[in-house]
Order: sequence, then C-alpha cells, then structure tokens
Amino acid sequence: MIERVHRHIDEHWPAHLEATRAFLRQPSISGDGAGMPEMAALVRERIEALGGRAEVVPTPLHPVVWGHIDAGKPRTLLYYGMYDVQPVVGEERDWIVEPFAGEIRDLPGLGECVVNRGVTNQKGPLIGFFNVLEAIRAAGGELPLNVTFMIEGEEELGSRNLPGFVRDHRDRLGADAAFFSMYNQDRDGKVVSYLGVKGILFFELIARGGEWGGPAGGRAVHGSNAVWYASPAWRLVQALATMLTPDQKHITIDGFYDDVATISPHDEALLARLAPTFDAATRREADDVRRFKYDLDGVPLLKKYLYQPTLNIDGIIAGHTGEGTKTIVPFEARAKVDIRMVPDQQPDRMLDLVRRHLDRHGYADIEIKFEDAYKWAKTTVDNPAVRALLRTYGEFGIEPELWPHLGGSAPFYLFSDVLGIPFAFGGLGHGGRVHSPNEYATVAGMRLHEKSIATFLYRLAEELG
Amino acid sequence: MIERVHRHIDEHWPAHLEATRAFLRQPSISGDGAGMPEMAALVRERIEALGGRAEVVPTPLHPVVWGHIDAGKPRTLLYYGMYDVQPVVGEERDWIVEPFAGEIRDLPGLGECVVNRGVTNQKGPLIGFFNVLEAIRAAGGELPLNVTFMIEGEEELGSRNLPGFVRDHRDRLGADAAFFSMYNQDRDGKVVSYLGVKGILFFELIARGGEWGGPAGGRAVHGSNAVWYASPAWRLVQALATMLTPDQKHITIDGFYDDVATISPHDEALLARLAPTFDAATRREADDVRRFKYDLDGVPLLKKYLYQPTLNIDGIIAGHTGEGTKTIVPFEARAKVDIRMVPDQQPDRMLDLVRRHLDRHGYADIEIKFEDAYKWAKTTVDNPAVRALLRTYGEFGIEPELWPHLGGSAPFYLFSDVLGIPFAFGGLGHGGRVHSPNEYATVAGMRLHEKSIATFLYRLAEELG
Repeated sequence: MIERVHRHIDEHWPAHLEATRAFLRQPSISGDGAGMPEMAALVRERIEALGGRAEVVPTPLHPVVWGHIDAGKPRTLLYYGMYDVQPVVGEERDWIVEPFAGEIRDLPGLGECVVNRGVTNQKGPLIGFFNVLEAIRAAGGELPLNVTFMIEGEEELGSRNLPGFVRDHRDRLGADAAFFSMYNQDRDGKVVSYLGVKGILFFELIARGGEWGGPAGGRAVHGSNAVWYASPAWRLVQALATMLTPDQKHITIDGFYDDVATISPHDEALLARLAPTFDAATRREADDVRRFKYDLDGVPLLKKYLYQPTLNIDGIIAGHTGEGTKTIVPFEARAKVDIRMVPDQQPDRMLDLVRRHLDRHGYADIEIKFEDAYKWAKTTVDNPAVRALLRTYGEFGIEPELWPHLGGSAPFYLFSDVLGIPFAFGGLGHGGRVHSPNEYATVAGMRLHEKSIATFLYRLAEELG
Repeated sequence: MIERVHRHIDEHWPAHLEATRAFLRQPSISGDGAGMPEMAALVRERIEALGGRAEVVPTPLHPVVWGHIDAGKPRTLLYYGMYDVQPVVGEERDWIVEPFAGEIRDLPGLGECVVNRGVTNQKGPLIGFFNVLEAIRAAGGELPLNVTFMIEGEEELGSRNLPGFVRDHRDRLGADAAFFSMYNQDRDGKVVSYLGVKGILFFELIARGGEWGGPAGGRAVHGSNAVWYASPAWRLVQALATMLTPDQKHITIDGFYDDVATISPHDEALLARLAPTFDAATRREADDVRRFKYDLDGVPLLKKYLYQPTLNIDGIIAGHTGEGTKTIVPFEARAKVDIRMVPDQQPDRMLDLVRRHLDRHGYADIEIKFEDAYKWAKTTVDNPAVRALLRTYGEFGIEPELWPHLGGSAPFYLFSDVLGIPFAFGGLGHGGRVHSPNEYATVAGMRLHEKSIATFLYRLAEELG
C-alpha cells in the first residue's frame, strides 16, 4: 500500500506542487494579522475536502483550526500544525522574489526551490500533510489512523493562546500520539531528528522617564539637555549590559543557571553517537557566521548549544532611527528579549529572576512587559511516535542524526505534560532561512517529504498496535 | 523712525501673520529632503521681493540661499538663517494638528499659538526678519544697514556643507557683524540671551557580525543560535555601556574631559549675575522631567549645564522592532550618538577618543560613521552686535538674563573663527517644543519679535558707527 501511495505522489506531483504554491500565496502573518482569517478558512476547507469535520475555533487573538477525520481505526493521531508565519517587514529589499508569490527559483547548490515566507516554517509541511492524506485516499487506501487536527495561528507569537485551547478542548483532543511534520534534512541530505524542544520566554524591557529622571511627558526633549537630564536610552543600555559578560558567554542574572538539570544518561548516549557526524562548521557557515562564541567542538560544543539557556536581544529601539540627524533625549527605549529555557527551567521562575536582577541593580523603574512563554519538552527513543519516525528514515536508507532536542522552541509540552501522549516531529525534505529573507524549500525535498509522511503514518499505526 | 516701523508692524499684523503661516506650510525637512527645493525658492523670492539680489547656491546636499540688499550704507549685516526643519517621522500620533498646516491653537497658559514644525526652530524668526525689512521700507524708511543673507538648508543635519560654502564664497560674505534671529523669551516673558554656543559632533556607531562573531551575511539568523553565536545587538549595548557610569553623570572615555577649559572671569561674572534669576525647576518642569542628574542648583548646576560635554544617544535600533515576536539574532545594531563640546574641545580630537576607547575595550570591529561636526563659538558683552541686542532689550523694558552660551549648538564658529566678525543671536518672542511634537510660538510673541528686530537693526547700525 505504501508503494502505491508513493507512486500516486510521484504521478500527481505537479498538482501537489501547485496546491502547495497556492497555499503559500496566502499571507498569514500573525504579528500584524495580515491574511489570518483567510488562511484559517483555507485550512478548514482542506480538512473538509478530506471528508473530515472542521471548525475555526476563536481564541482571544488568532483562531485555532480544529478538525477530525474518523477513519474507523482503533488509533488516533493528533496532528499539530501552524498556519501563521513570521513577518517580512524590514526585509523587503532583501527578498529576491515577492515573499508571498509562491515563486520557484534555482538557488545555487540547491536546485529548484520554492522561495516564500513560511514554505519551510511551516506551511509547506502542513499542506504536504494534506496532500499525503489525499494521496492515500486517491490511491485506493483507507487512512491507517484516525486524525485529529490542531492547527494554530499564533506559533510565531509564542503560541500564547494554545495552552488555553488545549485546556478548554481536551475532550476533542484525545489521541494516542502527537506529530508535527517538518523538513528535517540539511542541504547535504542528512536527516537531523530531534527528541524535544527548548522552552521560550518572550518579553519586552521598557525604560521610560519617570521619578528617577529622564523625559517623563511621553515626548523627547532637545538633545542639549543630555548634560543634566538622564536618558531612558542610556538607562536601558546600561541595564541590559549588566545581564551578560562582554564576551556574551555567560548570563550574569543571579540564579539564571540554578535550575539547569544534569544531562540524562539517555541524552549523554545520544550526544556520544551524534558527535562524530555533527558538523558544526557547516551549520555555522550556512548562517554566514565566522566563529562560535566558544572555542569548542564535538560533545563539549553540543552541550553548550543544547543545555545552556540564552538571553537574546531580538530587537531594540529608541529615539530617532530615520535618516539624518535629530538630537534628542528619547523619552522611551524598548528591547524585545527572549530567554530559551532548558530542562528544568520554568518560565515563571526565569521572569522573576529578571525582575529581581533589575531591582537589585537599581532599575526597578524598567518595565517588564511579558509577551508569552512555554516550557521545554523532551521525549526519548522509546516512544512509539519516535520509533515510527526512525523506522521511516531507515526505509528511505537514511541513518538519522539524532539530537536530544532542538535548539529552537515549540509548545510540545502540551503533548508531553498536558495531554500526556507521546510525540514526535520530523519528516524528510530540506528548507532554510526560516525567520529570514528568502526562506526556501527544495522542490525535490518537498516531494520526498510527502512520501516520508505517508510511510510514517503506516508505521505509526503499527507501533501503536 | 523706529516708532513708525513698529506702528506699521501693528497695523499690518494680520498680513504679517498670514505671510508667516504661508511660509510655515511649506515642509522643508532636510533629513529626507521633503520640500527643500520649494523652500529654497521661497526664500530666494522673499529676498528678491525686497529688492535684493539672491541666488540658490548648490552644495553637495541642500543649497544655501545667498542674497544681498545694497542699502547704500557704510555698514553691512550678515544675516544667517536656516530654512530646514527637523523631521516629524514617528511623531505623527503626538501632534494635535497637521505639522505643516500653519494652524493656530489656544494652548493652555500660552494663549494663541502657531503650532507647526519649524515655527520656532527657525522659520518663524526667518520670515519675521523678512517682514521687518518690508515694514521698514513700507514705513518710508531706508534700511539702516546693507544686508547679506546666508540661509542654509542643513542646519538640522549639522550644517555639514556650510563651512565649505563660507570658504568658497568668502568674498560675497564680507560684513561688519553677523546675526541670527530667535524667539528668546521664556513662557513668563523673561529674555534669555546667549553669548555663544556649544559645538557638536554627530556620528553613528554600527556593530555588525564579522570576524569577531555574529551573523556576517547581512541577514539575521534564528534566535535559537544566540546560545553559540554572538550578537551585534549585545555587542553595541555592551560597547555603549562602557562609555558612561550607570548614574549617567560621568563619561568614561579616556581623555574625554582633558580639553575642557577653565571658566573665564568674563563667564564667571555672568554666572554670578545669572544665578539669582536662573530658575532651573521651571525649565525642568516645562520638559516634564522630574529630577536633574545632579543634586545641585544655582551656579554649580549652571556650571554642569554649560561647561560639561555630553555623550547622548539620539537613537538606537537593531533587529525586530515591529509588532509581535520574532526571535532572531540581528546582523546589525546602530546607535546615533552626539557629543556636545565645550571650550576648548575640538571635534577631530573627540572622534579620535571614541575610536581609541572602542579599540582599547576590544570593539575595534564597531564602525564609527562620522555624520557631521562643528566647534563651539563664544563671544562677550563687549562686541557691537551684542551691545545692540542688549540695548534693544532695555528699550523694551526687559532686563535680559545673560548666559555665557547656549546648551545647544549652531555653526557660529564660522563667524567668530572663520570670518572673524562679531556675532549675536536673539530677539523677543516665545516658542517651545523644538525638535518635538507640537512645536509652537505664541502669536503675540511673533509680533513682538518683529518689533525687537526692527529696533535691533537701527541700534546695530549705531554701534557699528
């Protein structure tokens, strides 16, 4: 049966690719809301076209599309996905195509690629999953599992309303395993598979004039006053600078590393297996970065990457940032900051440490505007979803590089901690430049992705028994 | 004769006000170039309408309007002015009127005001000067002096091409004194007169990924990499933080205060006279600032304000500054910074100190992008232009508060150092919120300004003899 599905994907590939490009042409930027209702409707229609029930469920911001296809099978997969993408504002000049035109371009060393915001992160894999279910049906088969869909529209905003959705709709989310599909091959074809994610805490630090000094009237004052009025711009800069050593290796917030767990034997074993094939230099070069912070390689570098929390400035702004000169003391300075958390760090605790740090250093006036947060999630090689995924890679002749978890974040704790079901994420295919201009996925990889997902669904049904 | 001119201004005030508002409605933002050629043409037409010769003289950026009215008199005034204004970008929501509509509004405690970008800084005084010359002619008099005009379009950009213009056109700038007209009354009617200006050095600090680390490809990378890639945003923050003590009182760049001169006996005498009427709290409150950096008042606070150089962040930007979250390591961070210089500091030397500081602290990779600079300029109560101005204030029954110099900057060193002629700047009238939303000038003050300038011109002719 798997072979028939694969053949169907090959024979109907032009139609699948066209469906994918059409899906990508719909902008869906959760940051400013552009195209979000239209995109949610497209997702709902896809599930209905597969014979499922579907509903666009409102949340305080962007709705979750819930759906269910009853295949009359004993086991149910919870397919988690996202229909929102990162903004493109400020990147306009850097794109070689319109970011939402679904254009195909030959990229150096990659061949034919779809270049579009969200093609890899994460609407390409989502439409690929729909294409696979359609292919299974069209090839004359039944779905090997019932499928419940939970497709959110706020992943790029930190999935802020997803926990509430899961809590409120727990009865509609009963399943035996959860899965999130991705393009997990690097540009050389190597599969990189992850058994978890880091957590993330996102907030803004805002310095404004007030009792401590600085312009408190919500407007800048003439720059000549810098001699006797303090500046919120300097204040934010000084406060931030207290949080990190100048070499950027160590975060100096008291207690920041207190809850970092010892690495488990399971993970130590993975690291030992991973180190020989782990090619740090290639990753670094692909990002156009000349050197790591650390003069390390192999397991020691991997341990830094995976088991150290970060404090990152995503953006900072104050005062006059346009053309020309304007000499002012700004009334406000803002920094968007995120903390990536590793086991066993908890968002509430980390936020509290930042507050205490600011207070202790005399910056009680600096506001922390909480944006969103979720904790890390970890799984192991023993869970049925991971086993099915590893079998899939093996059947494609690929020995995956297995990582204890991803450096990035996703709200998978909802599966591991809240719903208490095994989860996995992966799939073949290659893409890149996520969260950056000219996000792409190779066309060949997108086809391979669909085939790998087809195989995975059958193997998952077997593993779940 | 002066009385006749004053009467003419009173009788024709509605027409003068209308001419002023029309002049203000023409945007002229040197920062982005909006309306600059149109504004230069308006200035040229004004001079020609007064019977003068005028020429829009190109510079590498915005032209200087040069003009001359030969009144057949033995003495010549060089009238310096500016036809450009500060940008309004980012302030749109804060204006109570369109910034270039020439609107009149009753402002609390101020009465009828023109609210418009540039009304006080500095197009209101400029059109006022034209109105005065017209009034002298219309009242049946001759101008008491020949007038040469040098009206630049880059004052808000640090007058970057004015030094070159003065060098190249020295022969057309011969004069016995230079004058710049301003609204120099505070909201209580007190005249504040300044005998000089601070210098300014404006530059950008730019941190980018490179050999030291960080994303070097001109694009941001996913924020999860912050754990092992260094960030230009942190780098700029850390570098800036090394330049100032946390209380913002002391600049920690080696040698920053080395060239600060001892206060002269002339200035010490002015400070002693100034201190009793100097009302620091009113100025501070007008700026909506709750406290000074220093727990000082009177002469000690004045000395800080006037004789200390500053290092100010006019603006800072990096990464994602729009709505929503976007987790990236930015590839670049930029800060617009200015240094206000006091006697005897020199721009080249200060720029060099910043470079050395960055290098010594390990930030040789941070680029300093020089924007513009000019040195301070000082004069004394003994020069004929200042004497004429002080006599004018006296005739209006006002005892001026005399300051050794302004906290702000203007390129008056071109008069004192380059052309070697006495200069003064001032005039009656009140305005405020320069470089800020809702810049205003009182209508009553604008009328008084014109009268004071008329008086000044006659007194200056007498003083020059």
